[in-house]
Order: sequence, then structure tokens, then C-alpha cells
Amino acid sequence: MTTRIVELRRGILKKNDELAAGLRGRFTSAGVLVLNLVSSPGTGKTAFLERTLRELRARGAQAAALVGDLETDNDARRLAASGAPVRQINTHGICHLDAEMIARHLEGWEEVSLAGLNYLFIENVGNLVCPSSYDLGERIRVALLSVTEGEDKPLKYPGLFNSADAAVITKIDIAGPCGFDRELALHNINEIRPGIRIFETSAKSGAGMDAWLDYLAEQARPA
Amino acid sequence: MTTRIVELRRGILKKNDELAAGLRGRFTSAGVLVLNLVSSPGTGKTAFLERTLRELRARGAQAAALVGDLETDNDARRLAASGAPVRQINTHGICHLDAEMIARHLEGWEEVSLAGLNYLFIENVGNLVCPSSYDLGERIRVALLSVTEGEDKPLKYPGLFNSADAAVITKIDIAGPCGFDRELALHNINEIRPGIRIFETSAKSGAGMDAWLDYLAEQARPA
Repeated sequence: MTTRIVELRRGILKKNDELAAGLRGRFTSAGVLVLNLVSSPGTGKTAFLERTLRELRARGAQAAALVGDLETDNDARRLAASGAPVRQINTHGICHLDAEMIARHLEGWEEVSLAGLNYLFIENVGNLVCPSSYDLGERIRVALLSVTEGEDKPLKYPGLFNSADAAVITKIDIAGPCGFDRELALHNINEIRPGIRIFETSAKSGAGMDAWLDYLAEQARPA
Repeated sequence: MTTRIVELRRGILKKNDELAAGLRGRFTSAGVLVLNLVSSPGTGKTAFLERTLRELRARGAQAAALVGDLETDNDARRLAASGAPVRQINTHGICHLDAEMIARHLEGWEEVSLAGLNYLFIENVGNLVCPSSYDLGERIRVALLSVTEGEDKPLKYPGLFNSADAAVITKIDIAGPCGFDRELALHNINEIRPGIRIFETSAKSGAGMDAWLDYLAEQARPA
């Protein structure tokens, strides 16, 4: 039975990779920078993304978001407060987004045309394991880690951190009460993914957001 | 293809359920209370369990732990500081424990005989989705949620909270700086699983641990 599962899994991932490659082509043609945000549940992806969307709008950029959750549209409602177009994807029990879900939710999204966007953010289902295997056609995969989690998360979930293009540390405003060991966290991220860009942020205080927004602008610039 | 996956998945879960039923029989015969601790990565399962093991020993109880992680034996080393026998299970990419892994790691665990134990704790892989489907033969499934996570986690992950026998809120010592809305969290847990026993704890300060330990003692008592 194990052999059949592995084969089936390979088949699913192969199909996903093909769909993702197609999406990546569409995103590149449209000139939209697509980012896939992955973290544990509770890391603060939604608060971080809401602030990012709000600040991008203040800078005159066009940004939209797709947000994945098993159930509820709480996150879409929270993100919509930024004023950006947002669409909820409910996976109903599936622990990650896949390329097919992205393609399906781009269809008929009347507020949004890819060609009119500078940025499309995809907030994945909160999970440090399964999303790592599913390419969504993004150009940048962002692994988020909060100061409330263990500093050894990169060592425990190397699949995610090793496949990420950028790392964001969230909630640095409560680093003190949490006893967060900053040096250890930075060391562990670099051990798994040497040289990765790391941003230290607080969606509450706004700390570190400028460096993050500058990075986005730099990445969105046509080569 | 979807039909084949669903069938295969049912087959896997059926096999797991059979193995779990066998384990449950062994645990019951041995008179050991087995608990399966499930939460997001970073909720503080390990700190909570380490304190639980330490306090149980101080009360004269015999407790041991199996701890699941994709990689590293960091958690086993942390838990071993309690003085209790601990065994690490590395799943190498699998996002949950299953009954077969439990059975395999009980074999040849020389320090531990089930008949000599009052409690066996199983710390699952940090994940709010996949562990919900896998019975490990436990008598009590515990869903943990920290004050640093969103209060809507029970609504977003109903599968876990609905299958839990007890809920533990962790890190209440930092509820203030985190802006934790206690009433909302309790309301949401009760909405998904009405009447569930809820413990509000801090592994750091020790708050709420006595109520939790009393509950364990009560559950371990022969009927």
C-alpha cells in the first residue's frame, strides 16, 4: 500500500507543479509579484498582511489577497479592512492550498484583474508542514515565525524554511515578555537557509515594516 | 483520481483505527491513562508537558512521554529535564503521529513498562489539522491553544476542537501584552465543543496547574 500512496502523491504533486508553472507564467506576463505566506496558525500572518496591504495602498500600489482557511471567512473580513480586494478560500479540511484552488479563485474575481495589480498575496492555511510541498505559482515564498514560538522552529520544520525566499519574524513588540532569544532564532534560520533575507516586524507597532515594504518594491521592479 | 484518493485515505484511516483500538485495549489492561496533546506549533505543548511531568513526579505518580516532531530531538531533551522517561518520534516529513508509530516506539523502550505507569503523554506534531484524524489509542485528547494565537482558532479548526476531551489555554502569564480576549476564546471553544473541560494555565508561573493535575488524578482513578 505504501508504494501506491507514494506514487499517488507524486502524481498529485506533479499535477500541482504543472498547474503552478502555468500560473507563474500568467503572473509574470501580467507583471504582478505573487507571494505565498506560510506559517504556523497563530503567528500573526493576517495582522502582518493587513498592515502590509494598508501601507502598500498608502504608497499608491495596487495589492490584493487570497486567504486560505479550513473554515470561516474571518480572515478575509479582517484583511478587507485594509481596503484591498480580498477573497477567502475555504479548504474544508484540506491542510494547505494548492495551485488548482488558486486558479479557481482567480476566475470570476470581478474586482481584480491581474494586469492591474502590483502585488498578489496568498495567505496559506496555518501549517508548517504540508504547504511546503505545494507550489502555488508564487515568485516569493515567505516563512513567518513569531517571537511567541520556539526559536528552534526552523530546525524542526526545515522543509518550509529551506524552500522559503524570505523569513519574517512577527510580534517583536512582545519579544521581551516572551523571553525571545533573537540571536538564536536568527542563527537557526541561517543554519537551514543560509543568507536568506530576514525581516523583524511588529504589525502592532509598525516596527520593521519599512524595510519589508522597500524589499517588496525592489522585488516588484521589472528586471 | 479523487475517488481513488478518498478510498485510499479511508483505507489508511481504517487500518489506523484498528491499530489504535488494539493500543487502547493494551493501555486499559495496563491501567495507564494515555493522553494525546495536539496544538499548533509554538503553543507551548513542550513547556506545559515538562511542567506536568515534573509536578506529577513530585506527587509520586509514574509518568512517561512520547514526543513527535518532523526532525530533531530537542523536545525529548527538554522533557527529559523533568526526570521522566521520554522517547522522541521523528516523523521525517509526516505531519502527524499515527497508531503504528506509537506501537513501534513502545517496543523496546527499556526504561518503561506500561503496567508500571500511571500516565503516558503523547505530544503530537505541531499541527491543527492532520492529527485530528488519527486516533492513537488515547483515552483523552487535549487541544491546546495559547493566548498568543487568535481567539477564533476553535472556529477555524473545528475538527480538532470537536474531537477533543479537554482544552488547555497556555501562556496566560502573557495574556495582557498579547491583548488576549479571554471571554471570546472561552465562548468559541464552547461553541465548537459545548461543555468541554477548559484549563487556563501558565507553565512559566504555574497558574492553573493544580486544577489540571487534579483532573488528571481524577481521570486516572479506576472507575
